[in-house]
Amino acid sequence: MSVSQTLTWQERIREQLQKGRAGAIGLLQEWVREASVQGQEAGIQQKIANHLVEMGLEVDVWEMTGDELEKLEKHAYFVSPRTEFSGSPNVVGVWKGTGGGRSLILNGHVDVVPEGERKQWTQEPFSGEIVDGKLYGRGVTDMKGGNLASLLAIQTLQQLGVRLKGDVIFQSVVEEESGGAGTLSTILRGYKADAALIPEPTNLKIFPKQQGSMWFRLFIRGRSAHGGTRYEGVSAIEKSMTVIRQIQRLEQERNQRMSDPLYAKLPIPIPINLGVIQGGKWPSSVSDLVTMEGRMGVAPGEEMEMAKIEMQAALQKLTEEDEWFVDHPVELEWYGARWVPGEVAMDHPLLARLQELYPSVFGEAAIIEASPWGTDGGLLTKLADTPSIIIGPGVTQVAHYPDEYIVLDDIFACAELFALTLIEWCELAD
Amino acid sequence: MSVSQTLTWQERIREQLQKGRAGAIGLLQEWVREASVQGQEAGIQQKIANHLVEMGLEVDVWEMTGDELEKLEKHAYFVSPRTEFSGSPNVVGVWKGTGGGRSLILNGHVDVVPEGERKQWTQEPFSGEIVDGKLYGRGVTDMKGGNLASLLAIQTLQQLGVRLKGDVIFQSVVEEESGGAGTLSTILRGYKADAALIPEPTNLKIFPKQQGSMWFRLFIRGRSAHGGTRYEGVSAIEKSMTVIRQIQRLEQERNQRMSDPLYAKLPIPIPINLGVIQGGKWPSSVSDLVTMEGRMGVAPGEEMEMAKIEMQAALQKLTEEDEWFVDHPVELEWYGARWVPGEVAMDHPLLARLQELYPSVFGEAAIIEASPWGTDGGLLTKLADTPSIIIGPGVTQVAHYPDEYIVLDDIFACAELFALTLIEWCELAD
Repeated sequence: MSVSQTLTWQERIREQLQKGRAGAIGLLQEWVREASVQGQEAGIQQKIANHLVEMGLEVDVWEMTGDELEKLEKHAYFVSPRTEFSGSPNVVGVWKGTGGGRSLILNGHVDVVPEGERKQWTQEPFSGEIVDGKLYGRGVTDMKGGNLASLLAIQTLQQLGVRLKGDVIFQSVVEEESGGAGTLSTILRGYKADAALIPEPTNLKIFPKQQGSMWFRLFIRGRSAHGGTRYEGVSAIEKSMTVIRQIQRLEQERNQRMSDPLYAKLPIPIPINLGVIQGGKWPSSVSDLVTMEGRMGVAPGEEMEMAKIEMQAALQKLTEEDEWFVDHPVELEWYGARWVPGEVAMDHPLLARLQELYPSVFGEAAIIEASPWGTDGGLLTKLADTPSIIIGPGVTQVAHYPDEYIVLDDIFACAELFALTLIEWCELAD
Repeated sequence: MSVSQTLTWQERIREQLQKGRAGAIGLLQEWVREASVQGQEAGIQQKIANHLVEMGLEVDVWEMTGDELEKLEKHAYFVSPRTEFSGSPNVVGVWKGTGGGRSLILNGHVDVVPEGERKQWTQEPFSGEIVDGKLYGRGVTDMKGGNLASLLAIQTLQQLGVRLKGDVIFQSVVEEESGGAGTLSTILRGYKADAALIPEPTNLKIFPKQQGSMWFRLFIRGRSAHGGTRYEGVSAIEKSMTVIRQIQRLEQERNQRMSDPLYAKLPIPIPINLGVIQGGKWPSSVSDLVTMEGRMGVAPGEEMEMAKIEMQAALQKLTEEDEWFVDHPVELEWYGARWVPGEVAMDHPLLARLQELYPSVFGEAAIIEASPWGTDGGLLTKLADTPSIIIGPGVTQVAHYPDEYIVLDDIFACAELFALTLIEWCELAD
């Protein structure tokens, strides 16, 4: 079927989405009110599973415990700060096709990062308040609004009586924010497809490439002393300042090398973020240890191991600046989350379809860029042979921010694009 | 009685101390093995109370709870990070004099700071191991060894059949390391004397003046963002580096003004120590808040309120360096511990007695300096009209350090000095 034929469906899809708009927004509010930070995902997953059952999908709900956990933990790509996942189920719903068409995974995560300092929010972080067409709440942009777009795409086609040849696999996973153990578990369970869409918050841009990233921890040593004679100790807090400057230099060096035109508009294509600092136990003691935790961006074509070596080398070079580090080297640990970088070929047919359909929905050409962050798409592309493209209605700038919000209209537009893409990719049944 | 008459006692005191040496060291080991960090002081206090009872002193053991706590918390000089003190009793033992002589308080604390990182210790922190005449352990220098010297001074005189005219008041308090609530409670309970000795770790120097200090907390704001687009946020960790540099400048300015000759040998007479830093919650988020906790030294003659104003002004000047601080000023909070600075007159008779007796014990003149840290002596001097002098056998350099130790010989020499001082100050009964 040609794209022009598909477009005859467009009006009907849009109309159907409008009919269901109020109900869909109510659903999103319910999802936001489930404050699904790490470990608290059971409530929203139950709601989603129930909804998928009502839609008539084949629904699979499982916790990563027992045998599942054992397999998971043995996998080379398993990373998580958690050792225990009970109470954090994954949910997959399959809309079986009639056979013969290409399959598509619609993958999204329900875990959200903590809300940060309440004071910086003008709305309650988990209220789902709507102001001027924007729905506010932690996780609404990253990425419950995107998940809703995926769900609406399937539901709308069903309501219009459409049957597709290929399978559509809706995945609602946990643990994306700490490295993808949820999606890895779907892969180990056998889920794969001919391609995947992941509606992470891209401002409706299309990301065929995505930055990888790894979490690290630094241990910076000092020597304790009484604060009243602090000159007799060595402050790990002061030494940390030297380490932070060195990390800033490393970030600069790595980014000067980035020549991929898809990153041209990003001020820092592969940032190194120092997100957590903690040191000292007593105000009147000199701190003997500071721990910092951060995230190192990895370029799409870069080997993660090479990036690790570069970080280690930069820390070793600290001795040139301060002799203290000769006998007290900064310890580096790679821990917790890791997102595999990923890319699909620039001539991939799913990318072509999205680019063709995009103007009919949005009235302008799609912007193609590289993702500034990792997503579960890296795992799907690399391990499940499922090339993954990232595009979603969320607002990049407010992901992980106070006053996170999403523009409601964008969710429905994205759902329209996804529904049209499903028809194109999976094909209408005869 | 003249000093020369007192010295006829010296040989007998020294001999008696030698006889009891093994038992005294065993007692100190027991005290060190009671890991009496904040909230864990009940065990050692029970041991001390029992010992004082055996010595025949009038023993007073109380917890700062109920009415005691109510009175305490209302007092202008009460500070503590705790709101609850049950399980942390104070102990006072009074060796009543026959009347007519001057009284003396021997004050010392049993709370110890946390041991810090275990790795930096070559000995177990609470083992009380003895190597080459040094006893190791957290709190042995600050200040259980000093407390032992006080106890031995009384015990030795008792064993020699001495009776004194003035009362000797042995105080074993909690909460010195966080601002003196223990000693404040002794004062509210009515304990005072004509003077006090506090055997904090001075390397056997005599400190007639002592630095005060105050704890403060700083809140440094950033703006959260996803680590992958960290340039869209403002890192509170990076802003903290600017704040740390400003505090370093303030410390420098304040110390350039210090002209008291008693501080001439200290590299930084009144340091500002930033002891604790904590910020961010997630490695891949830009941190929106860093909290730092520190200790600001206050000169003996300085008004604490003036020092506070100076700190506030320094933080306000941050706007000149970085516009961020205009709309996001660093918040300053004075909290937790505070040690009142203190000084006794340079011609105080207790100071004169100590200086006269010192050479007979140590074979050299006493070194008179100003204390680089606050002690409970500030409270005793200011609130209980009890001029307090600090001198003790502990090793200043290892207080609050890994491998804290004390030289055992110094404890016994200090006990000898204290016993002689008791005879001089409180006078032998007829």
